[in-house]
Amino acid sequence: MREMAQGARAAALRLAESTGKTRNDWLLRTAELLDSERQALAAANQEDIQRAPGYGLTDAAVDRLRLNDDRIDGMVTALKDVVALPDPVGEVFESTQRPNGLVVTRVRVPLGVVFFIYESRPNVTVDAAALCVKSGNAVILRGGKEAIHSNQALHEILSRAARECGLPRESAQLVTTTDRAAVGEFLGMADLIDVTIPRGGKSLIERVAAEAAMPVIKHFDGICHVYVDQAADLEMASRIVVDSKCQRPGVCNAAETLLVDREVAGSFLPEVSRRLLERGVILRGCEETRGLVPEAEVASEEDYRTEYLDLVLSVRVVDGVGAAVDHIREYSSGHTESIVTSDVETSQQFTRAVDSAAVMVNASTRFHDGGEFGLGAEIGISTDRFHARGPCGLRELTSYKYVVHGTGQLKSG
Amino acid sequence: MREMAQGARAAALRLAESTGKTRNDWLLRTAELLDSERQALAAANQEDIQRAPGYGLTDAAVDRLRLNDDRIDGMVTALKDVVALPDPVGEVFESTQRPNGLVVTRVRVPLGVVFFIYESRPNVTVDAAALCVKSGNAVILRGGKEAIHSNQALHEILSRAARECGLPRESAQLVTTTDRAAVGEFLGMADLIDVTIPRGGKSLIERVAAEAAMPVIKHFDGICHVYVDQAADLEMASRIVVDSKCQRPGVCNAAETLLVDREVAGSFLPEVSRRLLERGVILRGCEETRGLVPEAEVASEEDYRTEYLDLVLSVRVVDGVGAAVDHIREYSSGHTESIVTSDVETSQQFTRAVDSAAVMVNASTRFHDGGEFGLGAEIGISTDRFHARGPCGLRELTSYKYVVHGTGQLKSG
Repeated sequence: MREMAQGARAAALRLAESTGKTRNDWLLRTAELLDSERQALAAANQEDIQRAPGYGLTDAAVDRLRLNDDRIDGMVTALKDVVALPDPVGEVFESTQRPNGLVVTRVRVPLGVVFFIYESRPNVTVDAAALCVKSGNAVILRGGKEAIHSNQALHEILSRAARECGLPRESAQLVTTTDRAAVGEFLGMADLIDVTIPRGGKSLIERVAAEAAMPVIKHFDGICHVYVDQAADLEMASRIVVDSKCQRPGVCNAAETLLVDREVAGSFLPEVSRRLLERGVILRGCEETRGLVPEAEVASEEDYRTEYLDLVLSVRVVDGVGAAVDHIREYSSGHTESIVTSDVETSQQFTRAVDSAAVMVNASTRFHDGGEFGLGAEIGISTDRFHARGPCGLRELTSYKYVVHGTGQLKSG
Repeated sequence: MREMAQGARAAALRLAESTGKTRNDWLLRTAELLDSERQALAAANQEDIQRAPGYGLTDAAVDRLRLNDDRIDGMVTALKDVVALPDPVGEVFESTQRPNGLVVTRVRVPLGVVFFIYESRPNVTVDAAALCVKSGNAVILRGGKEAIHSNQALHEILSRAARECGLPRESAQLVTTTDRAAVGEFLGMADLIDVTIPRGGKSLIERVAAEAAMPVIKHFDGICHVYVDQAADLEMASRIVVDSKCQRPGVCNAAETLLVDREVAGSFLPEVSRRLLERGVILRGCEETRGLVPEAEVASEEDYRTEYLDLVLSVRVVDGVGAAVDHIREYSSGHTESIVTSDVETSQQFTRAVDSAAVMVNASTRFHDGGEFGLGAEIGISTDRFHARGPCGLRELTSYKYVVHGTGQLKSG
């Protein structure tokens, strides 16, 4: 393990000095090899798929594990998208001249070595490696054990492309032991690893955050809210609620709770419920909701704290924007909240008071995503407040240094 | 302890919603009270000064402990300077419109609760509280035990000003127990404290970094280098070396090692050494240096790893900029390095390859400082790569959130 991390550290030094063109060549060569090695990839993936029942994977999990032609095309496209993004390394993003003539600039530099822990989705192996290496970082990849054969085949391609482009093989390494203790060893290497990014279940992330000796960018769950205000365009509100819940219920930026202003509950709830029930959504409501929507089950305290990741929505009638903010402060995971209102003052009150990574006004929670925000691609969505919040793209995988140009300035004058 | 942190968390919530004017009023009222309470402050300080010999403080440490009229004037001026800085809270520092019409903005928000651990300099109590509260954070202050009476008197003023301005008393709290275990308790409260900023000796910072369950902004020592290249203006180089070493040798951005290009060692070293020896600097050099400067003592491997914080300078002759970079990579603490050269390509090679918080070209290392860089004021200089690097001013004490404005956009189109 330690040798692997030392290899990553040496690779990071060379990556920091590499040109953007070399790193792009590596991305493009990886894309070519993915395309030409489809058969080998399919064979490796087949081994994982065959073993999947032994791991007790659900059908949905097996589907995420699958590396079919569509998925490979998706990886190739994602690589080309990352090539097209500007090189963050060396970017001068701030420059000021001081009264004494010193020119003070801030220049983007890579973070160094990234330890990335993720779920059993082989395409993430390539997506994450692409973002880390493009931003000049070396990455140690630790995917779910259920995808190990697919990941090894993908990692072989990443290594071969690196060798062919003159980058160190250790630019992107894969942890091949599926032993859980290996993760613990890496988490102790604060001298060699600059940041750990865990993706996956809450318990994994909590364990990583507690054990890691280096900084961690956490990706916690999304208990996301939509609040429909009395000043909302109710037709717009209905569509936003349905989109936030149903467009893709299994992801972190899907809505889990609907808050409705008492003033419009009577006119809004029956209609939005009809549309949600039509889409197969199970509703769990407060007493007032159940008075207006007979189909709604009882919402428990626990429901308001649950990330369903499924076609289930908890619903609560509240006394205006202030009560909505109070509910969100108590129950939200700080990921994404949305208000629907036509009143500018109310929306300002909401966006000021709600402290989540993304606060939306008159838009679906589902837009909280690196691609939608214009970051190009993301390695995940941070629910931390430190360093990176919200979508983590290339910029969030960098640090900066001050470079100062003078003409002989002395502090003593 | 836990109650104190809970109080801070509640105060942080109110501070985040307070207006910039209220926070400035608090700073101004604190300045007034400092001015009018000089006698009480002097009396409290006297108690610390009397006890200082019992703590075995050096004369320099007793001097730092002193709260005389000059120091009080300094605090008052510093407070007014912070008032004059723009309010970071709520600043929209990025705004883009997406093709679908969504307006995506990034808005600065406070970090939350800051736990600040610092040395026995009472003026830091007020400076740090000012920066934290101005940026909307609640702060828990833990100063050195030798300054406890002075800090209690200052804290009383901070609290009184808060009460008078309608801010919670818990905006700035002081840890009054001098028990070291108290620090450990706070370091475990990741649920209530957002960031710990330790200032002081290396062993303290290492202990805090290892124990803290929340993010830490570390302020490690400065083993800073000046490299004099063959293409340097040698007169400028001499002045920069003398300024970097002698202008204030006891601080972290003072130079500790001089690297000289072999090509100019013969013409440069005798002259710069004469000036340094005149200023009372003890030189410790490599063999080649000692051949040119008979007064130089032998530099050991350990010397190159030492932050002298005193009038001592290690000197080494190297083979050009490449060898200078190699030396810096091996021995630097990543704080500040400076190159003196008139060759643009050489300076670019140096600024690209050297990965320290600040890299200077033709300027004294002593300029690495929040005031000199235009940040207005700083709580310290970070040697971390994560979140904040280099001077930590108001901006570095904030996080951000995405606020997104739409007109009913749906992900499903």
